Amino acid sequence: MRPSGRAPDEMRPITIETGFTKHAEGSCLISCGDTRVLCTASVEERIPPWLRGKGEGWVTGEYSMLPRATHTRGSREAARGKQSGRTQEIQRLIGRSLRAVVDMKKLGERQITLDCDVIQADGGTRTASISGAWVALRLAVNSLMKDGLITHDPIEKQVAAISCGIYKGTPVLDLDYPEDSDADADANFVLIEGGQIAEVQATAEGATYDEEGLLRLLRLAKIGCDGIFEAQMKATQ
Amino acid sequence: MRPSGRAPDEMRPITIETGFTKHAEGSCLISCGDTRVLCTASVEERIPPWLRGKGEGWVTGEYSMLPRATHTRGSREAARGKQSGRTQEIQRLIGRSLRAVVDMKKLGERQITLDCDVIQADGGTRTASISGAWVALRLAVNSLMKDGLITHDPIEKQVAAISCGIYKGTPVLDLDYPEDSDADADANFVLIEGGQIAEVQATAEGATYDEEGLLRLLRLAKIGCDGIFEAQMKATQ
Amino acid sequence: MRPSGRAPDEMRPITIETGFTKHAEGSCLISCGDTRVLCTASVEERIPPWLRGKGEGWVTGEYSMLPRATHTRGSREAARGKQSGRTQEIQRLIGRSLRAVVDMKKLGERQITLDCDVIQADGGTRTASISGAWVALRLAVNSLMKDGLITHDPIEKQVAAISCGIYKGTPVLDLDYPEDSDADADANFVLIEGGQIAEVQATAEGATYDEEGLLRLLRLAKIGCDGIFEAQMKATQ
Amino acid sequence: MRPSGRAPDEMRPITIETGFTKHAEGSCLISCGDTRVLCTASVEERIPPWLRGKGEGWVTGEYSMLPRATHTRGSREAARGKQSGRTQEIQRLIGRSLRAVVDMKKLGERQITLDCDVIQADGGTRTASISGAWVALRLAVNSLMKDGLITHDPIEKQVAAISCGIYKGTPVLDLDYPEDSDADADANFVLIEGGQIAEVQATAEGATYDEEGLLRLLRLAKIGCDGIFEAQMKATQ
Amino acid sequence: MRPSGRAPDEMRPITIETGFTKHAEGSCLISCGDTRVLCTASVEERIPPWLRGKGEGWVTGEYSMLPRATHTRGSREAARGKQSGRTQEIQRLIGRSLRAVVDMKKLGERQITLDCDVIQADGGTRTASISGAWVALRLAVNSLMKDGLITHDPIEKQVAAISCGIYKGTPVLDLDYPEDSDADADANFVLIEGGQIAEVQATAEGATYDEEGLLRLLRLAKIGCDGIFEAQMKATQ
Amino acid sequence: MRPSGRAPDEMRPITIETGFTKHAEGSCLISCGDTRVLCTASVEERIPPWLRGKGEGWVTGEYSMLPRATHTRGSREAARGKQSGRTQEIQRLIGRSLRAVVDMKKLGERQITLDCDVIQADGGTRTASISGAWVALRLAVNSLMKDGLITHDPIEKQVAAISCGIYKGTPVLDLDYPEDSDADADANFVLIEGGQIAEVQATAEGATYDEEGLLRLLRLAKIGCDGIFEAQMKATQ
Repeated sequence: MRPSGRAPDEMRPITIETGFTKHAEGSCLISCGDTRVLCTASVEERIPPWLRGKGEGWVTGEYSMLPRATHTRGSREAARGKQSGRTQEIQRLIGRSLRAVVDMKKLGERQITLDCDVIQADGGTRTASISGAWVALRLAVNSLMKDGLITHDPIEKQVAAISCGIYKGTPVLDLDYPEDSDADADANFVLIEGGQIAEVQATAEGATYDEEGLLRLLRLAKIGCDGIFEAQMKATQ
Repeated sequence: MRPSGRAPDEMRPITIETGFTKHAEGSCLISCGDTRVLCTASVEERIPPWLRGKGEGWVTGEYSMLPRATHTRGSREAARGKQSGRTQEIQRLIGRSLRAVVDMKKLGERQITLDCDVIQADGGTRTASISGAWVALRLAVNSLMKDGLITHDPIEKQVAAISCGIYKGTPVLDLDYPEDSDADADANFVLIEGGQIAEVQATAEGATYDEEGLLRLLRLAKIGCDGIFEAQMKATQ
Repeated sequence: MRPSGRAPDEMRPITIETGFTKHAEGSCLISCGDTRVLCTASVEERIPPWLRGKGEGWVTGEYSMLPRATHTRGSREAARGKQSGRTQEIQRLIGRSLRAVVDMKKLGERQITLDCDVIQADGGTRTASISGAWVALRLAVNSLMKDGLITHDPIEKQVAAISCGIYKGTPVLDLDYPEDSDADADANFVLIEGGQIAEVQATAEGATYDEEGLLRLLRLAKIGCDGIFEAQMKATQ
Repeated sequence: MRPSGRAPDEMRPITIETGFTKHAEGSCLISCGDTRVLCTASVEERIPPWLRGKGEGWVTGEYSMLPRATHTRGSREAARGKQSGRTQEIQRLIGRSLRAVVDMKKLGERQITLDCDVIQADGGTRTASISGAWVALRLAVNSLMKDGLITHDPIEKQVAAISCGIYKGTPVLDLDYPEDSDADADANFVLIEGGQIAEVQATAEGATYDEEGLLRLLRLAKIGCDGIFEAQMKATQ
Repeated sequence: MRPSGRAPDEMRPITIETGFTKHAEGSCLISCGDTRVLCTASVEERIPPWLRGKGEGWVTGEYSMLPRATHTRGSREAARGKQSGRTQEIQRLIGRSLRAVVDMKKLGERQITLDCDVIQADGGTRTASISGAWVALRLAVNSLMKDGLITHDPIEKQVAAISCGIYKGTPVLDLDYPEDSDADADANFVLIEGGQIAEVQATAEGATYDEEGLLRLLRLAKIGCDGIFEAQMKATQ
Repeated sequence: MRPSGRAPDEMRPITIETGFTKHAEGSCLISCGDTRVLCTASVEERIPPWLRGKGEGWVTGEYSMLPRATHTRGSREAARGKQSGRTQEIQRLIGRSLRAVVDMKKLGERQITLDCDVIQADGGTRTASISGAWVALRLAVNSLMKDGLITHDPIEKQVAAISCGIYKGTPVLDLDYPEDSDADADANFVLIEGGQIAEVQATAEGATYDEEGLLRLLRLAKIGCDGIFEAQMKATQ
């Protein structure tokens, strides 16, 4: 029934290639099927002005789509002179999601920026960004700890994200582009290892949904994130 | 336990004053406690370029906070030269929420813009905007029908929105500013009369939450939206 | 002869509702006929960089029109990414007019920003803004004096503004929108209690005017401002 | 008494060098004392969208100050990415002033843009711009008439502008920079040959002024503009 | 003598991986040592307004550096709201270089945009962009020809680019970052197969150079480009 | 053969009028045929943040074209809200070229900005800007030395620039606009007195060129710059 022939609770294959670029303190290329995002973690020994003197750090995210990551070329946001509402919404989500698992006191007075640049898009770019950003963050923090700049691990848990949706009446896991553009409802879940929820964004597109529908999507998301947690763990060991 | 002394499932008083401005085809000033938003619906006999020739209309939303709607003055977005990510996120949410209950074919080739300008803020400005925008839209469509420009009512249902959150461990309904700035989780629900969900945005702030927590928030939201549906109905009769 | 049936020297009714919003140190909703402007005064304990260390304060104004304050919806300046020339011209005028009656030494090293947001427009929005801004400023300074932050009243006089014009050959007071869009000349006067002039901006639109015409407009303006001074006084007692 | 030693009703010497640049349809370099402005008139056979099909033309103005026209270098507006409020205010004034003497029907469906670029500033740049722009416009229209593109002269009158002010208690004509920065009141008059007024902008700076003061400034302006009308006439014969 | 131990006329290893992304009509990841640039060619069946109706096509380039392509993170141009002068200079160079080898008549009324996104930077990103863009263009044109949309090959020649410089007094080929930041002169050559020059940009940094120096750099560039021509040919066969 | 009738190695007449504006520390109006550029040097006793505390100064350039400097009016960059890529490219070139002959240590902790504003354009505006900027810089430094603010002359050499090109198959010196728009190759040379090269930018337009062509253009440029050096010397003595 799904265009890809996948079962409703079947994810696309995930691969995480760490160290994809050499300058960043942490980096990976995460692929969820044909969606590929380059995630880098950059450590800077400075913090935003409103945090100064509090002995705390900060984690933030930025997101961009290369112009030809998609089927038809999109114009470059730098050329247009502003970031779209969609881009800003995603950036804010990435930052919030990662901050949910970091102890800012233990991080100390430094900022880590997670840049998520979509090389190729086939649905689920924001969730792949979050899942990959955690890997880049983990690698960067490992390096700070190895160098003795941090003594207690500030990363408390794993965090991962996945999209689910109601496609032709059936709840399905990990929407690809053909499903995403035709779904009745589209939900992004950011989950934390152990089953807690960091964020739910569930939107009715063609048809609305009910409490039961929301729960079924959440349960699919848990299945999906368990798979991602495993891939993250394998990539960072 | 709540700073305001309200019970966990108790909403702030809602009032909706229709016809607050005279030029707009529909308008109201909605007050949810001390949060007050001016909502206007403007009908224009033109549609966005990508809709031309499809025989359909469009509904969109814009949102702004007056500089001194808040405790301390915020800078004016027009002066800064761009809308913040938060503003754009809210605008997109308003538009999506209202479109969820409108049949674009019946609306015909015209656009209705819902402007939500926050006069005074005390938490829940985006949800009050959606609830008030529906009233402005209803009044504007009534006027189009009265003038014979539309023959079949394009508004299929009522839509309303409310925030809920986990405050000091307890799920509570309709967060005001003191609660909002100190909540463990903050969720905005956009619901449709009859119990369907148009949108859920639930974010962990201090602590994460689980499936049970999400459900309890959703149930509070249903109680809240039932009250708003009633106020909307009374205001537009 | 006037569309509204008013006599040439007859103003529209003025009402000033103080305390319209609760967060601002001073606020009012001023109505001049159907023109309604929300004016707030925000006190900030900081001054522009070029004033630092001089022991003086600053008073400045900002102005905006809600998108649907007018007959047809105007685009939002924040969305367009810049303020129009008209907006900036009006903002500068508001600031200059209020500064003309304030002793900056007595104000001390703080800034008061007067935000004038037009809720509904029917001609004369810039002059209503100035007249209302004085009320908001007066209330804010009263509050600073009550709290002992200022010991000598920095407001030396009242200031008010009114538009006059030559309409179908006759000088008339307080143009409303139908007159404004059809006037031969349009003049805005900012006057100070006691008969002094703070600013004159008189523009020929369809036909030019002569010295005699200018004087007749000025005399009408004095009549109008006397009425506004009274309304200001009543509102702030 | 005046820093320059001039009598209160004495203008600075005016020179108008026509044909200062070769590409523009009309151009001049106007010097009022040390203030020097390059004015060009550019004819384009297209009109703004809102005028299409009305058989009318349009006249508009643009203004800029070269970065080092002033005592200390100002930043370039193109580099800052926006025009200041002051620049926009002046541009609007230039356009309005010239339109006051042009019959748009006779001009036909074309636009003339008057660019006023300040090469050197010593007070009165906006008034010199208007006076010089008329010369550039006159030359451009002459050329259109000579080429048979226009048959009836659309320029109905001369227009000129001058600043006056109250300096150390005395009304004086044609403020230079040292006077301008120290004046109690500063007024710009745009006058039309024969004594009519196109625009008055009179602002109290240090002290306010009264009706008598306004009249005395207006009378000085008439003296000044008579001198400018003569110089314009001589330059364009 | 060179930090990398290379001989003065020794290039870094070049690899070109074609088909790096699936949506673009042509794409490759070009690596020149540690410099890696993703080049995509996007075909659009529309042309810039100024070319309409001429029966010709257009080729243009865009360039960007991912924020963490470099040793320290640079801010994102989309977030800053404008492209730097450097970026625009490079974009213009890429477009000019590719247009030098394309017959626009044979291309027909379509536009090909060459996006060059630097994944990792180690000197020579603009020259690698040009060399890689040719490959992406070649692949896209091959695909247009295969689909019968173009009948005569519009690509007349190969074009490639390389940087050379004077490092510690010696002319060297293909500067990497440590050399680039310490060179006395830095030159970028865009050459065409067969020995013709499309563009030379040679800049003295620490010390100036003479005619002899320029010639020696040009001769190194010819050696370098011959190697690149070969790599391009191998990648596109 | 040349549209102007000049010999291939014949420059247009150069005149340099120093002291063209009175506020700048150094200024000149340079004319190369019909190309006229106003160059001013502004001294500021502050340096860019990244130079603080190094005991060095900075020299930078800005460039702009007046809207009607050209055959048809161009839109004003300040009105469009951004500088074009061409403008930024030229600004960077002006700054680099002048810095090539200044000892920043001897200049001391101050910045000199060279503003080059094109009054009238007929080809070669960027090269005229560089040649004129040197004169403005020389005059400003003379004034600093006369005032005892600088003790050792920081200007080590003269720098000048000229364009050459291949026009109808023949290398020619100092392209004017008709030649520039029709040339096969267009090269800008920035040369230093004594024969050294500061910058070469040579671009094939219609046809590519070879090593021999490049050399012939360079030799013409040397002839041209020798003439400019002489004019610069005469103007600043």
